[in-house]
Amino acid sequence: MEKIKIYKGNIIFTKIPEKFEVLENGYIIVSDSKIKKVCKELPWEYNDIKIEDYSDKIIMPSFVDLHLHGPQFENMGLGMDKELLPWLETYTFPEESKFKDLEYAKKVYMNLINELWENGTTRSVVFGTIHRESTEYLADLFIKYGFGAYVGKVNMDINSPDTLVESTSESLLETKNFLRNYAGVSSRVKPIITPRFIPTCSGTLLSGLSDLAREYSVPVQSHLSENKGEIEWVSELHPECKNYSAVYDKYGLLGGDIKTVMAHCVHCDEDEIKMLKDRGVFVAHCPTSNLNVYSGIAPIKKYMKLGMNVGIGSDISGGHTLSMMKCIVSAIQNSKMYYLYIDDSYGMLTLSEAFYLATKGGGKFFGCSGSFEEGYDFDALIVDDSAIYSVLNKDVEQRLEKLIYSGNTSCIIKRFAFGEQLEK
Amino acid sequence: MEKIKIYKGNIIFTKIPEKFEVLENGYIIVSDSKIKKVCKELPWEYNDIKIEDYSDKIIMPSFVDLHLHGPQFENMGLGMDKELLPWLETYTFPEESKFKDLEYAKKVYMNLINELWENGTTRSVVFGTIHRESTEYLADLFIKYGFGAYVGKVNMDINSPDTLVESTSESLLETKNFLRNYAGVSSRVKPIITPRFIPTCSGTLLSGLSDLAREYSVPVQSHLSENKGEIEWVSELHPECKNYSAVYDKYGLLGGDIKTVMAHCVHCDEDEIKMLKDRGVFVAHCPTSNLNVYSGIAPIKKYMKLGMNVGIGSDISGGHTLSMMKCIVSAIQNSKMYYLYIDDSYGMLTLSEAFYLATKGGGKFFGCSGSFEEGYDFDALIVDDSAIYSVLNKDVEQRLEKLIYSGNTSCIIKRFAFGEQLEK
Repeated sequence: MEKIKIYKGNIIFTKIPEKFEVLENGYIIVSDSKIKKVCKELPWEYNDIKIEDYSDKIIMPSFVDLHLHGPQFENMGLGMDKELLPWLETYTFPEESKFKDLEYAKKVYMNLINELWENGTTRSVVFGTIHRESTEYLADLFIKYGFGAYVGKVNMDINSPDTLVESTSESLLETKNFLRNYAGVSSRVKPIITPRFIPTCSGTLLSGLSDLAREYSVPVQSHLSENKGEIEWVSELHPECKNYSAVYDKYGLLGGDIKTVMAHCVHCDEDEIKMLKDRGVFVAHCPTSNLNVYSGIAPIKKYMKLGMNVGIGSDISGGHTLSMMKCIVSAIQNSKMYYLYIDDSYGMLTLSEAFYLATKGGGKFFGCSGSFEEGYDFDALIVDDSAIYSVLNKDVEQRLEKLIYSGNTSCIIKRFAFGEQLEK
Repeated sequence: MEKIKIYKGNIIFTKIPEKFEVLENGYIIVSDSKIKKVCKELPWEYNDIKIEDYSDKIIMPSFVDLHLHGPQFENMGLGMDKELLPWLETYTFPEESKFKDLEYAKKVYMNLINELWENGTTRSVVFGTIHRESTEYLADLFIKYGFGAYVGKVNMDINSPDTLVESTSESLLETKNFLRNYAGVSSRVKPIITPRFIPTCSGTLLSGLSDLAREYSVPVQSHLSENKGEIEWVSELHPECKNYSAVYDKYGLLGGDIKTVMAHCVHCDEDEIKMLKDRGVFVAHCPTSNLNVYSGIAPIKKYMKLGMNVGIGSDISGGHTLSMMKCIVSAIQNSKMYYLYIDDSYGMLTLSEAFYLATKGGGKFFGCSGSFEEGYDFDALIVDDSAIYSVLNKDVEQRLEKLIYSGNTSCIIKRFAFGEQLEK
């Protein structure tokens, strides 16, 4: 029998980037974990059902983090003094090497899960490390605590430190084992093919990963055009390809028949942008990270106007926070600087646009998450903003703005994923 | 008799911008509210004095906010969709108009004080509104709760909305009353001359304020070169002056014999920069605000390399947070974008440099605050970072970095100003 739940409160979400849908004192009717209807008046047939009443609270979609590195959690907020490539070598690779030790991984990944919970992020697309066991533990944690996630065992077989490198065959074999163990285990937590980025992957490895993606019907995640030094390196490694995107494309790892998300896309040329758009590749915009490791500012408003798939990633620990609210603020601020200093043709991100990216935009990668439309999973946050509520008389949209700019995690009082409340 | 207090803990501060002074398990000896000595070993003559032991905690200078608008507190995190001039008209002026009502002011200013306390800001340079009574109430609150502050009754006699304008004579008279009432009342909370900015002040008003500043020996605060539209407007209003700074200078309101702080200084030309430097004018860098109302990025590293006086301002509610930690992060990020996109000659702000700005840099405006050198007021925070402490083995400088990037106000467990603990 259909299991119905009804939530009442000040409902806000984005169907389209351009504007918020707001239902003051509205109702969300959830049927078997999926949204059935959002409405201002409750239809009579639901009169007998008990309402979960959050009348003075806000009900909004929970957040989707489209790009983050689980093993870099302990480095979050550290080492913000270097550019991408030396930063990887100095801080990131030594830390990731530790994940050979499953006991170390257990501690860190549990902290990560707690912090995602705190921040109201109920879905994420995550890089693990090259270590299968640790990465499987991370997937298990997501399953255990009820989150939605794509989790990737990272692949690195060239140009990597001795402590963080695999042979090509080992890399492919362990990836295959990972896929075998997790493809089909959970409808909520799924494996994803994860070549770190072009410089650390041989052609043979990329080819093999492409085959595995097709064999197991799993998506692909990687990094693209984050930093100018990195881009130069890629063009030295692959002089046969006209640009960075073309290298992924050469090996069949750039969208089209395979769902793909590429982090950053800061410096893509017109040719690449066209390719990303045509292939339906998701761009994971990582505004805080792009500032911290001073990669640059990505033309996100342009990508949106072109109708590309875009979401937001915290990219810890290039990014210094898992808070998608802070990432929304950063995305808007970055777009303002892009407008002022780089190109004023596309305008700046509005609050609804940036909110859309952090909810429905990234949620599209999962299917139906991040909005309150019919058929969407009920992935939601209940927000009590009384501690930051202004003495001004404000509407729901303004309350959301204040929450995002000046609120904190303690305002989030409940988190739902797939219709179920997530407990800490 | 000399009253001695001794604090033990992991001490960190900046004497100079270029590097941190760190004393792991060190001692701060405070004599009658002022720092006497910071040392690794306690001299024998203090052996009988009880030590306040914060052995696993961090002891650091409390923050100095060099520019903020008290009456805009309720607007914090709202209205982030407009550029300076329309933003003032749409959001700011209507809100400030309400401060005619002392009861409204009381509520808002109490919230402001609480939030400054939360964020560990113990000194601030504050704009009130044109309303003397409300502004005096704000000064009283700072006195009552033990903070250090410069508080200004704002002056606006032209180009202002009907609800927020004074006649020239009224503006001067009320300023004189304010100075009479507060000059000399407190050694910690002092009045400051506060023309809003050039566009809202007539020449007669500016002249009169200049005289009052000298008559009462009080400093001056205002805004300078924040936004291109504003700068253009100033040049239309004062075609006789070669630049924005020259207008303040014409009326004797630009440093020299009068201590002056100017907020923003985003678009100053070389001529203005030289003038600011020669006159010892303090620049209040407001990074979050400059992004939110998209004014631009100020060349702060350049100002520092030129040896100018610089501090950081939250500039609520152009800025969306009173957290000086978040402002430090924003200052560093902005300097990285400045380096990438505007001018790479001066390099980027380091953590110690940005920390210096938010402590000793701004503290210089008050005299001796923001550092733990001999003779400085003991203005300090005790920080318990165990909640964000990484499983990595980190030193005090790294703990501070993590605190600033990824910490929150709940890590601050005690605040001291002038040697006394501030209670909520």
